[in-house]
Amino acid sequence: MLETRTEYDFLGEKEIDIDALYGIQTVRATENFPITGYRISTDLIRAFGMVKRASAIANFEIGRLNETYKNAIVQASQEVIDGEHHENFIVDPIQGGAGTSINMNANEVIANRALEILGKDKGDYSFLSPNNHVNMSQSTNDAFPTAIHIAVITRAEKLLETMQEMLHVFKEKASEFDHVIKMGRTHLQDAVPIRLGQEYGAYAKVIERDIRRITNSIEHLYEVNIGATAVGTGLNADEHYIDVAVRELAAVSGYPMVRAENLVDATQNTDAYTEVSSQLKVCMINMSKIANDLRLTSSGPRTGLNEINLPPRQPGSSIMPGKVNPVMAEMINQIAFQVIGNDTTISMASEAGQLELNVMEPVLVFNLLQSIDIMRNGFNVFSKYCVKNISANTAVMKEAVERSVGTITALTPHIGYDRASKIARQAIVTGESVRDLCEKENILTAEELNHVFDAYEMTNIGVSTLPATEDTIKY
Amino acid sequence: MLETRTEYDFLGEKEIDIDALYGIQTVRATENFPITGYRISTDLIRAFGMVKRASAIANFEIGRLNETYKNAIVQASQEVIDGEHHENFIVDPIQGGAGTSINMNANEVIANRALEILGKDKGDYSFLSPNNHVNMSQSTNDAFPTAIHIAVITRAEKLLETMQEMLHVFKEKASEFDHVIKMGRTHLQDAVPIRLGQEYGAYAKVIERDIRRITNSIEHLYEVNIGATAVGTGLNADEHYIDVAVRELAAVSGYPMVRAENLVDATQNTDAYTEVSSQLKVCMINMSKIANDLRLTSSGPRTGLNEINLPPRQPGSSIMPGKVNPVMAEMINQIAFQVIGNDTTISMASEAGQLELNVMEPVLVFNLLQSIDIMRNGFNVFSKYCVKNISANTAVMKEAVERSVGTITALTPHIGYDRASKIARQAIVTGESVRDLCEKENILTAEELNHVFDAYEMTNIGVSTLPATEDTIKY
Amino acid sequence: MLETRTEYDFLGEKEIDIDALYGIQTVRATENFPITGYRISTDLIRAFGMVKRASAIANFEIGRLNETYKNAIVQASQEVIDGEHHENFIVDPIQGGAGTSINMNANEVIANRALEILGKDKGDYSFLSPNNHVNMSQSTNDAFPTAIHIAVITRAEKLLETMQEMLHVFKEKASEFDHVIKMGRTHLQDAVPIRLGQEYGAYAKVIERDIRRITNSIEHLYEVNIGATAVGTGLNADEHYIDVAVRELAAVSGYPMVRAENLVDATQNTDAYTEVSSQLKVCMINMSKIANDLRLTSSGPRTGLNEINLPPRQPGSSIMPGKVNPVMAEMINQIAFQVIGNDTTISMASEAGQLELNVMEPVLVFNLLQSIDIMRNGFNVFSKYCVKNISANTAVMKEAVERSVGTITALTPHIGYDRASKIARQAIVTGESVRDLCEKENILTAEELNHVFDAYEMTNIGVSTLPATEDTIKY
Amino acid sequence: MLETRTEYDFLGEKEIDIDALYGIQTVRATENFPITGYRISTDLIRAFGMVKRASAIANFEIGRLNETYKNAIVQASQEVIDGEHHENFIVDPIQGGAGTSINMNANEVIANRALEILGKDKGDYSFLSPNNHVNMSQSTNDAFPTAIHIAVITRAEKLLETMQEMLHVFKEKASEFDHVIKMGRTHLQDAVPIRLGQEYGAYAKVIERDIRRITNSIEHLYEVNIGATAVGTGLNADEHYIDVAVRELAAVSGYPMVRAENLVDATQNTDAYTEVSSQLKVCMINMSKIANDLRLTSSGPRTGLNEINLPPRQPGSSIMPGKVNPVMAEMINQIAFQVIGNDTTISMASEAGQLELNVMEPVLVFNLLQSIDIMRNGFNVFSKYCVKNISANTAVMKEAVERSVGTITALTPHIGYDRASKIARQAIVTGESVRDLCEKENILTAEELNHVFDAYEMTNIGVSTLPATEDTIKY
Repeated sequence: MLETRTEYDFLGEKEIDIDALYGIQTVRATENFPITGYRISTDLIRAFGMVKRASAIANFEIGRLNETYKNAIVQASQEVIDGEHHENFIVDPIQGGAGTSINMNANEVIANRALEILGKDKGDYSFLSPNNHVNMSQSTNDAFPTAIHIAVITRAEKLLETMQEMLHVFKEKASEFDHVIKMGRTHLQDAVPIRLGQEYGAYAKVIERDIRRITNSIEHLYEVNIGATAVGTGLNADEHYIDVAVRELAAVSGYPMVRAENLVDATQNTDAYTEVSSQLKVCMINMSKIANDLRLTSSGPRTGLNEINLPPRQPGSSIMPGKVNPVMAEMINQIAFQVIGNDTTISMASEAGQLELNVMEPVLVFNLLQSIDIMRNGFNVFSKYCVKNISANTAVMKEAVERSVGTITALTPHIGYDRASKIARQAIVTGESVRDLCEKENILTAEELNHVFDAYEMTNIGVSTLPATEDTIKY
Repeated sequence: MLETRTEYDFLGEKEIDIDALYGIQTVRATENFPITGYRISTDLIRAFGMVKRASAIANFEIGRLNETYKNAIVQASQEVIDGEHHENFIVDPIQGGAGTSINMNANEVIANRALEILGKDKGDYSFLSPNNHVNMSQSTNDAFPTAIHIAVITRAEKLLETMQEMLHVFKEKASEFDHVIKMGRTHLQDAVPIRLGQEYGAYAKVIERDIRRITNSIEHLYEVNIGATAVGTGLNADEHYIDVAVRELAAVSGYPMVRAENLVDATQNTDAYTEVSSQLKVCMINMSKIANDLRLTSSGPRTGLNEINLPPRQPGSSIMPGKVNPVMAEMINQIAFQVIGNDTTISMASEAGQLELNVMEPVLVFNLLQSIDIMRNGFNVFSKYCVKNISANTAVMKEAVERSVGTITALTPHIGYDRASKIARQAIVTGESVRDLCEKENILTAEELNHVFDAYEMTNIGVSTLPATEDTIKY
Repeated sequence: MLETRTEYDFLGEKEIDIDALYGIQTVRATENFPITGYRISTDLIRAFGMVKRASAIANFEIGRLNETYKNAIVQASQEVIDGEHHENFIVDPIQGGAGTSINMNANEVIANRALEILGKDKGDYSFLSPNNHVNMSQSTNDAFPTAIHIAVITRAEKLLETMQEMLHVFKEKASEFDHVIKMGRTHLQDAVPIRLGQEYGAYAKVIERDIRRITNSIEHLYEVNIGATAVGTGLNADEHYIDVAVRELAAVSGYPMVRAENLVDATQNTDAYTEVSSQLKVCMINMSKIANDLRLTSSGPRTGLNEINLPPRQPGSSIMPGKVNPVMAEMINQIAFQVIGNDTTISMASEAGQLELNVMEPVLVFNLLQSIDIMRNGFNVFSKYCVKNISANTAVMKEAVERSVGTITALTPHIGYDRASKIARQAIVTGESVRDLCEKENILTAEELNHVFDAYEMTNIGVSTLPATEDTIKY
Repeated sequence: MLETRTEYDFLGEKEIDIDALYGIQTVRATENFPITGYRISTDLIRAFGMVKRASAIANFEIGRLNETYKNAIVQASQEVIDGEHHENFIVDPIQGGAGTSINMNANEVIANRALEILGKDKGDYSFLSPNNHVNMSQSTNDAFPTAIHIAVITRAEKLLETMQEMLHVFKEKASEFDHVIKMGRTHLQDAVPIRLGQEYGAYAKVIERDIRRITNSIEHLYEVNIGATAVGTGLNADEHYIDVAVRELAAVSGYPMVRAENLVDATQNTDAYTEVSSQLKVCMINMSKIANDLRLTSSGPRTGLNEINLPPRQPGSSIMPGKVNPVMAEMINQIAFQVIGNDTTISMASEAGQLELNVMEPVLVFNLLQSIDIMRNGFNVFSKYCVKNISANTAVMKEAVERSVGTITALTPHIGYDRASKIARQAIVTGESVRDLCEKENILTAEELNHVFDAYEMTNIGVSTLPATEDTIKY
């Protein structure tokens, strides 16, 4: 039989595993919320360690916490930061109560560990209490958002690093494919020539913007509401405490944390998160489009576009021999759908704030951290295992340009849209080449036609393929 | 150092942990998709065991698989059904490739276990192969959807049981509160009296519809596409095989599985899932509204509506002493937001199907099973720990009815809307009671007023509070 | 200068255009809600006419409304049903107040028209009043939902007719293309042969399910809450009134309207609408997938798949001569995105119900009717102008099957997955045909190969291409 | 019978109303897309006028368009800018074809009007052609996005003006209510005191951020892709043309338009729009929360919180006399749901881009402009008719603070969480005041209690209610 200790709160008592660092309120939470079965994100746990550490130092500096307690709480908090007690964080990510359960889980773990450090029994809260000492000058309503901010920044920084690497890979492909001419398509219909490198350059460009957008949105998280306590009025936290706590938070996290301008606002509004989530969503919309392009242009091998080859990563079928599928790109699509769905959840959670608090923060932060993590994980393997090793079927693409009809667009300035349309439709129906038809109809000289139909020239932005002359200007 | 065996596929070779039941393709998948860090749902793994078992028996009956192999595969599959090898299912729920990775994970585990049973070394696929024997007559494109159907049915049945219990609890409260009169509110503004039991009766009624909707949507999942193989044409699977496989699937699962009418359709379309997800979403929209009502009517204790008491489940605040929050209801709201967000993900995944297949099924089923599970888990504790023990502050509600203005509505048929409006506005401005004002203005006799202002009578549907007489009919 | 009459309500007075049938509350609403600039759906206006008509007859039958008034209100309501006064319905679809504004707009128009009929001045509400007479025994909270139900049914019936026509067109194409063999694709990669008719048969099948789903969801709307009045308790409406009102509503609408089982429930819950919207969404997810398939398979003409031709409907480009785009399919995609977005709006509006009422119904019904209408409009032209005249490039598809690699799947039962994979990869790398490679390697006889590689046979569901013999069974 | 002229394109001919400025392609579009029945936004039409004007001047400056034609096109375009021909823009906002139909509608209107100006017959396109002259150096794929950018900026500027006004109103209320003390609530449960002005200050603060977010997102729209033509390579548009066109666009619009850095990117990616839409969504999530707070705190009058009064704007009920509802706030909620739904549509449309173009732009811009417009319209009346005239029930709120339990939080630093919890629970159960209980238990002196329980002091951020002394420090 499990050995236990008895703990009390104002609702009653509970038996707690004698070895557990968590306490009665944590156990209540696990009974109340057996929902997802997942664990709290480790970076969120670590961030709680930072909040408790910073707060203890601040409480000491303002003379409310004595040095012995301060040191014990700081040491216990540091252990949490160092990842030593993660197994004691057992509450579910989806929990009622605006994060009180995870905050109390942190308070209890740190209190019990501090008690151990001070040579006391776990559970001896009359000596050192989760609420009075570890949570001193705090409420869940400032401790939790502050921890969320740090956790999101931490994860997002890692995501941004991975995105920089992915950007680099796309830029390299843009450069590698700079001279590969292919048929541009609009509406999936043949349009006019473009260079494969221009496509990858466009992918790189939009990723660059996504990096900037996410970076900008993260910056708003440096503002934290620590010291706001219950409703943002800072009840039980004084000015000096707030300054020290923020300073210490910056020190331990390494981020330029600052105090929110308006603590009431910062306690009740969650727009900082919805803004981040929105920018993640915008990014994944772009990435899904890129993944779709890769899947489309690598379609085949025999009966698709077959313009590029994605590196084979695994046999694609349990039944069809030799089949290889664009699995890495498909994974990106699925991550996109997940992140977009998560943004819906986050939006609804944010909208459900009421008066002084948004109690839906647990599901909000669960989804936000998940979005960041799966993006980072996905981008990492997508860049390394897929994009980096894409190869171009140059000959296939060149041949397609040559037999295409859309190149006639270059002739429109010379012969007008209507006449060019007639030639185009004739080509489509008969299967003849537009260049041959132009020659037959004595449109321009052969040399001029060579010039006009130079596909590579067509892809040079801002350069007319045939300079306007007295003769060719019709209008 | 880890001892390994070498396995091969047409893309090369890999070292595999000697003790592992999974093989090379599983390992490739873990390298390619380190995305969520979560495990595949155990009921989905079990369902794969059922598919492989049914298929082996069918292949035996049509004479393509010999008895030795059949018996070994059936035994290994049964062990998977019995949950013995879950730790060997290591691929990520979000994976590219339409489920090939999870299907091959199942094929490899069962093949290696069958090899063990037959006294052979794991990895000896030339003797018994994941593709040729375990996956015989199958493709991922029929095996995976078939397994999904069974897994979703299994989970949903449990959800429906829990919903029946929750319905029962709400019905009991409706009965318990049947005589508790309170002020009805529309637009959060005082309207006319209603009985608390009528509110809970309405909650029960909508839950009843949700049960019916989910039940109906689940029924479409009894149709499976086993035997459709790669694109629905059933290549490499014959008629007899399909019949036996479906029969065996029904036997092992205990559900009335039938063959999909049109296998091509059943292989490419995922509307059966989006339909289930939509009905889950509709349910959670309703449940979120109920949770909001509970939170609103239990607001207080001193400065809110304070009509009902939710049972205290945990201290509500780390800073505010004695505070208790409606955490169970808040949890339901958050589950609602999660399920609604999941439905967005599922919708987008479903929309992304192309031609003969929807390759986004992994993220789709991950979200669908999560929705079902968190609903079930949440409803269970919500019913037991919250709704069941709600108590009514009868006196508070009665007093509110008495001082309300809205009861004047009952008088409108007698004095007209305009005159009644004047009295109502006067009451609001002066703070007087509408009944007193009516008496002062000599509207009806005191007895008639008693009759008209009988709040309980007002709540009896289809009963006019004052029968029309010659005198009172104005129109 | 505009001639006006003065009208009063309990908040003050307003000048009203002397010719207007609407009155003071309508004008207040236009001042308060100048939001979208759109008009209320005409079928919703007509449905209000039906509600007011049915209610007047019921009030007459229970002896609360005299015959003169009844006749005038019935005549005025009938004129609204007949579309004669639509220009007097001027409130915005997005309006605060749970529809009070549109209900009062209807009450005022009918009251003023009834006054005209009775030879009175418009605005003479002391004689016949919008609230006391036209709205007698009603609240917005039952009149509006009842009208919504009828309006949605009316529109949805038209949608379902159009869907039946669309289904017929798809079935015809399935039959027309039944013998056209093409390469099936999974993951956009070559898979195994399929018949074009099988694809269109699958499209038809999913549309058939969508028709059934929408039909089922509409049936719940036959239940109406007329007689529920303010909060569902039926205050001021008696039993007999309800029975007659429902009977009359059925008569005037032609639909089998019945009384909601639980009027409190029916007044506060909006799941009947979210259910319809969800099914519309499921339908459009399916239709978007179909539209994507059409755009993909008609891609080209020279550098795409070019399997089918969509009928040209308009020049596709302002710059590229002769270009024709799949505009009808693109329109279907956009309608899908709109309907899916509308479902998000509807879901949030539904979730926002509180206690006895959902005040967000105006935005809900605005989106629901829009979804139905744009689907109907879109399906109509999509079927007629696009699907009906799709033609198949039979030769292109046949040639693709012949040079494909995926057909080797049919050989797997005979030579095993691994050996088949080797041949397949060799074929892909060298460009050789798999049949040639098989002959070279002496796999089966030429006759057997002919049999195995018969693409048409491969598409026959449930038929093995080569019957198992002693010789070919390997396992 | 209608008099007509005959027009031709490469697909055939059509009879066109002799007086119409639009032509054959416009008519084809109306036949193909009778979807919503709505008109194109007038600011989008005007923006097309600007694009055509700027382009004509640029074509003239580079020597491709002669002065006569230039002048006629410029004059006709200016008339479109001036709103003279809006009735000739008849294509539906939801249209296939990436905006070719609206672009050709503009080309045709301007060409026909230019023909009139030049004394020619409408339809004489061999003289002056929609494609060759009006659309010279353009494709829909640059003209349409450029016009969208200008239209969105135009509308958004108006929105931002209205938001500034709304911000001002909220700031004024924050100041007006600065000294009104009330009970703060978290989880809808009594928490600790706050000042009403602090709540409105928080509302103002989040609106301030929303203004900043929307402003930032709009700035990205100054970059336009004019000159990109079909796929971003600028085929048929030269460098000099682009420079002049952008210069002229800036001049005519008054906005600091610049050329997109990467034209291929700018032609295929729509993240600039999804970013704007996301920020609109974030704003409406915040506004919906504010609207919910207003509805909640104004609930009553007799049986709700009754803390504030929203100005009565219209009778609230057709049946309940004297009832007034928070209709302006309910309208804001509904606009929020619409904008959030529109964001879903926009996200899906953006995700559906393929290769060189996003053909789903029509539905995207339709929703984006609608979101902006309904927000502006809603905020305008919400500020003016609702927020500006909110009044506070100061006495009601003060009384609530006095009888509340939550104020005991201020005592926690002095007596610890556990003892304070006991007193709080006792107070809740017995109905006694916490201050009385403290006095009874001799906790602190009466003077100290006065100090600690000073509700106003509790709301001063960063100020401890009772400075720490030797005596009171417990830890």
